[in-house]
Amino acid sequence: MADQSSNQMWGGRFAAGPDAIMEAINASIGFDKRMAAQDIAGSRAHAAMLGATGILEPSDVEAIREGLLTVLSEIEGGTFAFSTALEDIHMNVEARLKEIIGEPAGRLHTGRSRNDQVATDFKLWVRDQLDAAEAGLLALMKALVAQAEAGADWVMPGFTHLQTAQPVTWGHHMMAYVEMFARDLSRVRDARARMNESPLGAAALAGTGFAIDRHMTAEALGFDRPSANSLDAVSDRDFALEFLGAASICAMHLSRFAEELVIWSSAQFRFVVLSDRFSTGSSIMPQKKNPDAAELIRAKVGRIFGAQTALMMVMKGLPLAYSKDMQEDKEQVFDAADNWMLALAAMEGMVRDMTANREALEAAAGAGFSTATDLADWLVRELGLPFRDAHHVTGSLVAKAEAKGCDLPDLSLAEMQSVHDGITEAVYGVLGVHNSVASRMSYGGTAPARVREQVARWKEILG
Amino acid sequence: MADQSSNQMWGGRFAAGPDAIMEAINASIGFDKRMAAQDIAGSRAHAAMLGATGILEPSDVEAIREGLLTVLSEIEGGTFAFSTALEDIHMNVEARLKEIIGEPAGRLHTGRSRNDQVATDFKLWVRDQLDAAEAGLLALMKALVAQAEAGADWVMPGFTHLQTAQPVTWGHHMMAYVEMFARDLSRVRDARARMNESPLGAAALAGTGFAIDRHMTAEALGFDRPSANSLDAVSDRDFALEFLGAASICAMHLSRFAEELVIWSSAQFRFVVLSDRFSTGSSIMPQKKNPDAAELIRAKVGRIFGAQTALMMVMKGLPLAYSKDMQEDKEQVFDAADNWMLALAAMEGMVRDMTANREALEAAAGAGFSTATDLADWLVRELGLPFRDAHHVTGSLVAKAEAKGCDLPDLSLAEMQSVHDGITEAVYGVLGVHNSVASRMSYGGTAPARVREQVARWKEILG
Amino acid sequence: MADQSSNQMWGGRFAAGPDAIMEAINASIGFDKRMAAQDIAGSRAHAAMLGATGILEPSDVEAIREGLLTVLSEIEGGTFAFSTALEDIHMNVEARLKEIIGEPAGRLHTGRSRNDQVATDFKLWVRDQLDAAEAGLLALMKALVAQAEAGADWVMPGFTHLQTAQPVTWGHHMMAYVEMFARDLSRVRDARARMNESPLGAAALAGTGFAIDRHMTAEALGFDRPSANSLDAVSDRDFALEFLGAASICAMHLSRFAEELVIWSSAQFRFVVLSDRFSTGSSIMPQKKNPDAAELIRAKVGRIFGAQTALMMVMKGLPLAYSKDMQEDKEQVFDAADNWMLALAAMEGMVRDMTANREALEAAAGAGFSTATDLADWLVRELGLPFRDAHHVTGSLVAKAEAKGCDLPDLSLAEMQSVHDGITEAVYGVLGVHNSVASRMSYGGTAPARVREQVARWKEILG
Amino acid sequence: MADQSSNQMWGGRFAAGPDAIMEAINASIGFDKRMAAQDIAGSRAHAAMLGATGILEPSDVEAIREGLLTVLSEIEGGTFAFSTALEDIHMNVEARLKEIIGEPAGRLHTGRSRNDQVATDFKLWVRDQLDAAEAGLLALMKALVAQAEAGADWVMPGFTHLQTAQPVTWGHHMMAYVEMFARDLSRVRDARARMNESPLGAAALAGTGFAIDRHMTAEALGFDRPSANSLDAVSDRDFALEFLGAASICAMHLSRFAEELVIWSSAQFRFVVLSDRFSTGSSIMPQKKNPDAAELIRAKVGRIFGAQTALMMVMKGLPLAYSKDMQEDKEQVFDAADNWMLALAAMEGMVRDMTANREALEAAAGAGFSTATDLADWLVRELGLPFRDAHHVTGSLVAKAEAKGCDLPDLSLAEMQSVHDGITEAVYGVLGVHNSVASRMSYGGTAPARVREQVARWKEILG
Repeated sequence: MADQSSNQMWGGRFAAGPDAIMEAINASIGFDKRMAAQDIAGSRAHAAMLGATGILEPSDVEAIREGLLTVLSEIEGGTFAFSTALEDIHMNVEARLKEIIGEPAGRLHTGRSRNDQVATDFKLWVRDQLDAAEAGLLALMKALVAQAEAGADWVMPGFTHLQTAQPVTWGHHMMAYVEMFARDLSRVRDARARMNESPLGAAALAGTGFAIDRHMTAEALGFDRPSANSLDAVSDRDFALEFLGAASICAMHLSRFAEELVIWSSAQFRFVVLSDRFSTGSSIMPQKKNPDAAELIRAKVGRIFGAQTALMMVMKGLPLAYSKDMQEDKEQVFDAADNWMLALAAMEGMVRDMTANREALEAAAGAGFSTATDLADWLVRELGLPFRDAHHVTGSLVAKAEAKGCDLPDLSLAEMQSVHDGITEAVYGVLGVHNSVASRMSYGGTAPARVREQVARWKEILG
Repeated sequence: MADQSSNQMWGGRFAAGPDAIMEAINASIGFDKRMAAQDIAGSRAHAAMLGATGILEPSDVEAIREGLLTVLSEIEGGTFAFSTALEDIHMNVEARLKEIIGEPAGRLHTGRSRNDQVATDFKLWVRDQLDAAEAGLLALMKALVAQAEAGADWVMPGFTHLQTAQPVTWGHHMMAYVEMFARDLSRVRDARARMNESPLGAAALAGTGFAIDRHMTAEALGFDRPSANSLDAVSDRDFALEFLGAASICAMHLSRFAEELVIWSSAQFRFVVLSDRFSTGSSIMPQKKNPDAAELIRAKVGRIFGAQTALMMVMKGLPLAYSKDMQEDKEQVFDAADNWMLALAAMEGMVRDMTANREALEAAAGAGFSTATDLADWLVRELGLPFRDAHHVTGSLVAKAEAKGCDLPDLSLAEMQSVHDGITEAVYGVLGVHNSVASRMSYGGTAPARVREQVARWKEILG
Repeated sequence: MADQSSNQMWGGRFAAGPDAIMEAINASIGFDKRMAAQDIAGSRAHAAMLGATGILEPSDVEAIREGLLTVLSEIEGGTFAFSTALEDIHMNVEARLKEIIGEPAGRLHTGRSRNDQVATDFKLWVRDQLDAAEAGLLALMKALVAQAEAGADWVMPGFTHLQTAQPVTWGHHMMAYVEMFARDLSRVRDARARMNESPLGAAALAGTGFAIDRHMTAEALGFDRPSANSLDAVSDRDFALEFLGAASICAMHLSRFAEELVIWSSAQFRFVVLSDRFSTGSSIMPQKKNPDAAELIRAKVGRIFGAQTALMMVMKGLPLAYSKDMQEDKEQVFDAADNWMLALAAMEGMVRDMTANREALEAAAGAGFSTATDLADWLVRELGLPFRDAHHVTGSLVAKAEAKGCDLPDLSLAEMQSVHDGITEAVYGVLGVHNSVASRMSYGGTAPARVREQVARWKEILG
Repeated sequence: MADQSSNQMWGGRFAAGPDAIMEAINASIGFDKRMAAQDIAGSRAHAAMLGATGILEPSDVEAIREGLLTVLSEIEGGTFAFSTALEDIHMNVEARLKEIIGEPAGRLHTGRSRNDQVATDFKLWVRDQLDAAEAGLLALMKALVAQAEAGADWVMPGFTHLQTAQPVTWGHHMMAYVEMFARDLSRVRDARARMNESPLGAAALAGTGFAIDRHMTAEALGFDRPSANSLDAVSDRDFALEFLGAASICAMHLSRFAEELVIWSSAQFRFVVLSDRFSTGSSIMPQKKNPDAAELIRAKVGRIFGAQTALMMVMKGLPLAYSKDMQEDKEQVFDAADNWMLALAAMEGMVRDMTANREALEAAAGAGFSTATDLADWLVRELGLPFRDAHHVTGSLVAKAEAKGCDLPDLSLAEMQSVHDGITEAVYGVLGVHNSVASRMSYGGTAPARVREQVARWKEILG
């Protein structure tokens, strides 16, 4: 019933007919060649083990291991000719190995299959990315701590609902992101520890009758142990999903900070000036500086979470063990990893380069009766008013100040006492943004002293 | 506060420092060069309009339009040198144009900006893909209709919950997918009609003071009209989201059929034999034929819906007008489009090539008392039993057959009458799978006659 | 092997053992009772058809149809006792019907099954929501048009990257959203037209041997026609997915506008004042007005697109025909519909109530050399400079103004001519924000005259 | 500009006008009352700390703590009257407390705000669910281990691509899921440890000037420590996202097993018989047993991952600190938690109840030359053939068997030797499914001895 003409009919893309379509949908060499180094490392460890256990002759092992190094140097040197007909990185490497060393190449695949081989390669690749993410997170955290240290006592508005709520310090705001990225780092480390089991030697799905030593290859490749069930070992992509999950939450954090940078860079806020390097300008409006990098970082959470969605949907309802659907895992993870690392690096660069507009921050911090809560708290603390009553008194004082067109500290003591006669001169000690932030000494609070404690703690952790 | 060493510290990927990071995150030429033909078509239409309205001199217009053709042929010929420093396809084309024609190149950008230019290019690209999707859907529908015509009266089990429910015909099952893909086609056409408004001339966001003729460029580019609001024109990515939405639902349909093909190809079902071209074999198990193409198609819905998720998340909460976040739109759509077209083509090829195992289908259709419902319906229709009572009688008859280890038609009339004495010889006319399917003559039903009507209807529509 | 104690061991939620678990996971009456009116309408149409075709006696039909009205009034009156043991709305209604009218109730289910019944009910429910969405969109569009009409010539900054780019008009900005919601409306109407085919009579999956008239029930229920394939009819949930897709894009539009309202309400922007009704206040900071409704609307796109994700993943890879997985469709759609309608209503209310701060808008519009592009365009238009050269001249003029600490119109003609001696007094006619917006007369541009044309067009359309 | 009639115009749902709309979109008491116990526990700990630090009088503290117990008992007893006007659970509880104890109730809110209060409540709620998930996972793992122990040496087909690949053991297959759920358990525990920091005392966003002791309340509520940054504490929803992430991957695992159960229950496979309790039957086809519970479990990953999508999208791009958008967090997590626990319980019940069809499994295991790989491995191991050559010889032998219509063990030694003369009688020791599985003794392999080791290991871990 096949009719190649039908395909040709509807256009050129697949005009070559079914065989070209199958090759296009089936071959993975176009992307899995990124795992060449991991593939060769895995094969070298496997060969060494086959020798140590007496399954292969030492001379064969030696030839294989040396030959693989040659292949690797060809790939790294850009002289390797990848073949789509050979479908994937595994077959490309093995075929070239055979050209180089001949017959012993055919013995390398003893006691393994492509199913455990690809799982091993991919795990090694993802593990490298988790390490890169750790480095990127640490660098970003250091940049934030540096900003926090410089501005531990600079006051700025603390927002809820993007409305000025209470004054906070610049350092405190920066350190909030340090906490977020610290959780990301913790997730990265947990993910790495959990995934660090070697699938190698699970073979096609059932294990093998060869007396291989999976603990030896696991150790050689830096895994903590071999995985305990061969069916699971070749069917599992949790490590990729957990990588994407950690990346997505981190990218969400980045999107929040990026949003703040975009808003803070607006003409209306002017809280920060981003460096030219991470902005684009306009040839005719010299003061215009578009926060392009911040916007692009803000968008990355979509891309990375989109990859998580894709792979989650691919894995939904797949029976054991390996199904070809799982070949769709790599491009999603590759793209997400690239963009995660890029976003971390760009954010770090922006944070290092950016300049806070200290005057604008302080001016904004004091607007809008932002220390009214401090006044209410003073009434509770000093006069013993119940919290809800103190709020009522404060509301009246704010209304009085608003009617008079002044700020709270500008009311006279007499005016204050006309609302509540217990108020004393001491009240002025809590009004004003610097007094406000200094008073918030509860653990985790915004007081400069507290911020400096956190900065010190993190500097010690980050080294 | 910038410190390039920090980046270098954590590894080689961005060792070149902030500038390399910014270029990596900011430049789009790596992917938007796929829109070169659209970009040049848009510029040629714009130039012609600038001439017709007297904004540019005819000689300049002529030079621009000819020069753009030269650029296009360089790109198509593979001799064009793309520059990352020039960021995007628009600047690459214009810079090359300037090299070729000199000063008039600087006049091309009159009355437009990159914001409307990129929206125009991308819309044209997406529109082409909608046309390709239409072609792919039509070809697939034809392949399904051909299968349906050949097997309009082949019986097979109709499943609910993957349990045999009632016999249906092969043709009916194939035509169910024709209906699904027809809805996809309808969605594609609606999306095309809705998006077919030209953003060109919206300029940066506010329109322009030049007396341009947006209707003229709209017509030249095959748009139905210019878009009515310049702010919306440069901020809108609905067309991309709707493209991805239509693609996702279609890919979901493909995943359902692919799942069936995988199950039907199992040793336990043996309902179909897929062609070697769309399968992969095993060198040692010759009868093993892995339905790789079906599995890969099944997975594509993840990838395509992942792209929709990504772009939806990118667009969430973006203020008007253009934000750089929107640059993340293209790669998602490009990848989804490629994979949608590929999945359609692969499915069409598989459908054309596959062979139904008619005997296995018929044998499975008759198992499990699959015509019990027909018996119950007969009791209602002929004996006037209420439906719920008829079900009770049928249950008793099935139990009797099961106890006897035979099928329903194997019960004698006396055995039947021992359960309900109104049963007559005529009952045997509805038992048996061929009788069953033939009887289901309600509109849309599985009767071969009904299937053939639908086949005829669709053959006329599909031409 | 079952051991109820194990369940009891881990806590109270499912302490009652497997039967309680099965009931909890299996029964749908807790949510599908929302389709009671649709279920009864479908059954009444089906009964009438069974009578008209002679399948049922007129007296039975009469009893059924009257009895169903009684059931409906009990449900609407709140006196109906729903039973979880009866699992779903269909069985609850039928069981009650039997109590009321006795034996004829058992004849209602002739020629249909729960599979086509639930598809019919759900389609009718979704269709009602599409109608509600249309009404909600029209009301919102009217509110926006009213804002646009009032402020057709109020100037405000047009942003790209949240940086001031060019002046636009308030009316133009409002009308951008009218265009967006108009596309949503168009999608809603397309979805309604596409889904308006009746599944009723598809029976379990194969059609029926009863001589039913599916065209008659389709017409009675307001469908355009019966669906053409019974397998597809009971397996299809495209209508739900397309509903969610249209809702998601609309909710994304709402999130963009909500984001703008949140930003515009900040102390730094002060572009709008939202009404007290759609804000929440603070007892101690009287001027603080949190834009709660805007923030909640901004969040709804997550919820609605989450529902689309859920249902898309449920449908992925389901073989035909009905699978129980599909029971997960309703709660997603119910929740998304409720939140969509609520978000539309809340946004309409906010738009009607909100007050633009015209002075703040105009002041912000003129800042940042926002008319530099107008100057450049003037140089091109009047002096014949190539666009790229004009940009260079403009850049120099802006630099001069910036150095002098003034705005562009404040430069003297001599100062202008020192940069380019062709500049004449006429240049001042394009500087200034009102001149700028007035000049942008291209179709779809921001000129007040253009905005008023669009307002007039939409007022006629919206009635 | 407000016009209530417009709302009324488009239907009844929001006919009451803007105030009803605002209440509908704003109030959370409809769902957050599920956190009543957590809210009261948090308030009691806070009150005790306010007493211990001397901020409140002991008598007030006593009254508050006792009064809160009364409120709790009213809520648990179902006599509490929730008020929508009071918006949320916090205000409902506090208002009732005031009715009961009068003025001291107003002192409870000292040194905290609703922002840290809701974060504390929600964290406590999520933490309880993580504990419930742990219990559910452990119960399910025990059920699987019991199945594995019973069938450690039952052979069944191991599938790749749903094609028979190699024989495995039932026990091995069950234990593969134990490994998956063990990873889920590990993720749950990591998530619990990471989130176990107390936000209480972070106050609105900046900390407080009251000398509160956050370590004391943290300890009282079972947290490991107070969170270190008050801005982060009220802005963070990572714990909810990580909960949803762990739930999603687990639900994906459940979907895979559910898919297998559905396929295995088909008439074509007949690998398992599910219990009646977790199936639904048909009144007329007694042997028909729909695997409803398995299908519903298969669908839950959609619902749970949909919740993750929703919350991820809500959090994208939110500036610090609290925004009202975050109120959308709870319903997603509540629904996902309910469905996760339900799915775990239902799967556990199904696993305990299900009966493997040992004969059908074994018969299927031997079909399709499933031990061809064992033969190839024997050739490598015993005759020293390179792996790729061994595959070639095996292919020839399979072809010979296929031509003869027999299985591999049915070939005579002479026939074997005609393909490769080195083959000896010993080869028959690796053919046959029991020999095959017994030979796969590599660590993690399917050999019954290996499976029993894993069963023993897990029984010790699970207790």
